[in-house]
Amino acid sequence: MTKLVSTGPADSSAQGVNYDRVFHQAIDRLHAEGRYRVFIDILRNKGNYPNARCFAGHNGPKPITVWCSNDYLAMGQHPKVIAAMEEALHDVGAGSGGTRNIGGNTHYHIDLEAELADLHGKEGALLFTSGYVSNEATLATLGKLLPGCIIFSDELNHASMIAGIRNSGCEKRVFRHNDVAHLEELLAGADPAAPKLIAFESVYSMDGDIAPLHAICDLADKYNALTYLDEVHAVGMYGARGGGISERDGAADRITIVEGTLGKAFGVMGGYIAAEKTIIDVIRSYAPGFIFTTSLSPVLVAGALASVRHLKGSGEERDAQQAAAARLKTMFAEADLPVMPSTTHIVPLMVGDPVKAKRIADILLAEYGVYVQPINYPTVPRGTERLRFTPGPTHDEAAMRELTRALAEIWDRLEMRKAA
Amino acid sequence: MTKLVSTGPADSSAQGVNYDRVFHQAIDRLHAEGRYRVFIDILRNKGNYPNARCFAGHNGPKPITVWCSNDYLAMGQHPKVIAAMEEALHDVGAGSGGTRNIGGNTHYHIDLEAELADLHGKEGALLFTSGYVSNEATLATLGKLLPGCIIFSDELNHASMIAGIRNSGCEKRVFRHNDVAHLEELLAGADPAAPKLIAFESVYSMDGDIAPLHAICDLADKYNALTYLDEVHAVGMYGARGGGISERDGAADRITIVEGTLGKAFGVMGGYIAAEKTIIDVIRSYAPGFIFTTSLSPVLVAGALASVRHLKGSGEERDAQQAAAARLKTMFAEADLPVMPSTTHIVPLMVGDPVKAKRIADILLAEYGVYVQPINYPTVPRGTERLRFTPGPTHDEAAMRELTRALAEIWDRLEMRKAA
Ligand SMILES: Cc1ncc(COP(=O)(O)O)c(C=O)c1O
Ligand SMILES: Cc1ncc(COP(=O)(O)O)c(C=O)c1O
Repeated sequence: MTKLVSTGPADSSAQGVNYDRVFHQAIDRLHAEGRYRVFIDILRNKGNYPNARCFAGHNGPKPITVWCSNDYLAMGQHPKVIAAMEEALHDVGAGSGGTRNIGGNTHYHIDLEAELADLHGKEGALLFTSGYVSNEATLATLGKLLPGCIIFSDELNHASMIAGIRNSGCEKRVFRHNDVAHLEELLAGADPAAPKLIAFESVYSMDGDIAPLHAICDLADKYNALTYLDEVHAVGMYGARGGGISERDGAADRITIVEGTLGKAFGVMGGYIAAEKTIIDVIRSYAPGFIFTTSLSPVLVAGALASVRHLKGSGEERDAQQAAAARLKTMFAEADLPVMPSTTHIVPLMVGDPVKAKRIADILLAEYGVYVQPINYPTVPRGTERLRFTPGPTHDEAAMRELTRALAEIWDRLEMRKAA
Repeated sequence: MTKLVSTGPADSSAQGVNYDRVFHQAIDRLHAEGRYRVFIDILRNKGNYPNARCFAGHNGPKPITVWCSNDYLAMGQHPKVIAAMEEALHDVGAGSGGTRNIGGNTHYHIDLEAELADLHGKEGALLFTSGYVSNEATLATLGKLLPGCIIFSDELNHASMIAGIRNSGCEKRVFRHNDVAHLEELLAGADPAAPKLIAFESVYSMDGDIAPLHAICDLADKYNALTYLDEVHAVGMYGARGGGISERDGAADRITIVEGTLGKAFGVMGGYIAAEKTIIDVIRSYAPGFIFTTSLSPVLVAGALASVRHLKGSGEERDAQQAAAARLKTMFAEADLPVMPSTTHIVPLMVGDPVKAKRIADILLAEYGVYVQPINYPTVPRGTERLRFTPGPTHDEAAMRELTRALAEIWDRLEMRKAA
């Protein structure tokens, strides 16, 4: 890799660009801002999550408690999910062996798509390798199929939606977070003849607030816009069958495209959209991110199928999770910790500084065996760095009390009471 | 979903765009060109691949033989792979539960990255949810980190590389397939001070030919360009340890970034890059497609780890596959079938027409229980539609003879001898 060996400015200017220097500078910028990321090295313990083992920097694995997993309902260790995956593994093997079109379309994929379509009350559904890819591929492709389309995007939309919108080549108009009046202002100002798409999320995962679905759909009706709803942090967790906020609010039939993940509440991995048949068919037929990639492993699909089916019939996990979240919020508030005003299962504590957020997380892990990841830019805006807790049905009262005490001690030690 | 109900031109023009009509027209175009895709519905039989079951249009599953899987070495059913996945499933559960940065970084991920770095003789490696995402995310991010970069791209590069190059925002210059003289012409014509990246594949999977790695690296040295090599159809299959064509040709240390998949020869699912540490670190830190997505399920990672390790030590599968491919090419040639001049394990038969390609595949499946997917535009250029066979270590001589006889019969029946 001679080309990347830094040969100093004189020599490199003779050759043109010094790649190595450019890349090092990019890394240096992260260190300077205190947001260089070090991945923690863990294994969760199937069967007694939130317990896990942490590897880095120890002699052998050290037991920890995980407080920041998006396996919100602990379905990743549910016996039905494990059994379904084991069965598929032994029946058909490890991978699908191909793209959906070329050898990689298994019976599991077809069954899961039918199950997801039913979950959202739509005619069809389409699987992707991840929620990220489902957002990117669908939004980019929709935009390309609708020449002149204007995409109206909530300012806090996830990076994968932003990527899809950018790659669509469409004009984007950003509305203030959950601000229906601002959205209407933008819709009213747009050419009535132009195709329009409103892209938003139901549960915003870093703040824990929820979009006003009906109000947005009213505007979509009024201005003849399509609606695209990311329910990644809501599927499995809201609605009587886990159909998300659109089910809970009785708005599913007003949303053109519902998007979800199989990697959070469903506990596995993968993404999908649900919509009417024609839309599923165009995305299936035109989206490069769907077409040109090995399909989801049938092992994952079988696990997701078991998980979706279970959560359609069982509200127990949802109830326990909501109770755990409410309990933890109360404890944090009582301990005078700066818990943010979340209306969902997500419990964020505001820190407001990337270096401090990391420092607190480091102390929690080293001294208390508590794993919570500091959330820094670009995941959240600069100045709003936070710790984000996701208590679930398996986080018990004793663990919550310990966590709260640990945080209160650290808040005192770092003299953060004033800041909060 | 009122908005998508077609209400006729008069009504819809009053409202603005008629979305339903636009989407239907997009589908109609595919039908008109004879390239509307219907996915076959199968389950492969673990333990006796290439045998599988086909579901659609039958009463119950019908036994078939799969001839178009990219599980080239049948590693998807290898006992070591299955055992490793089963163990991980029971140890840590179904999914990772988070992004790499937030709770989804397991010990398996770290081990596999070390194994892949070693496979390619690089300092580091980075896992992605798929080969598609690894190409898209890496190329787009590299381009953004190198302002003014010009990307030189082989005209037959895969859709995922094309997506990454487009999303990088860089200027793209396309060189004729494997044409080193044309590439040099383009490099010589570019600003010497501009950053440059040459993006190409080793094995081109639809034609089965191989890029001249050293000649391209010579140009990269001469013009101070980085090199990006997609080894998706070569990793596991070429080189003494399965390091791909770059290993076979002793060129690995001349390639800046090697990209591969875990979903083809390794039999599982996922993608990766291998490069020097600084590059891995910038992509890890800056690529949205890496950062903002649930990490690969540890079950898949464990399976891939077993597969990579096995194929590092065993050449048996590679040898058997090469022998099978050579045997099938000879049989096709002897039967006067239009086998394309592949120098690899891929055996394409030229048809040159999308409707005919589909017709042949339909007959093969219905009458002979042979599954091979017709390859149409946009996977290959229009007019070069083909059937693409991927014989592996488990396709035996008898199956090859049957296949060849079936094809010869169909070629006669459809009066295609003249065409060929
Ligand atoms: C709002 C939102 N959408 C989409 C995604 C991507 O989903 P996946 O993890 O399945 O790629 C995420 C997180 O990862 C997310 O938070
Ligand atoms: C050349 C090439 N690169 C990348 C990919 C994408 O890899 P994956 O299937 O792992 O997404 C493919 C095929 O799927 C391919 O043929």
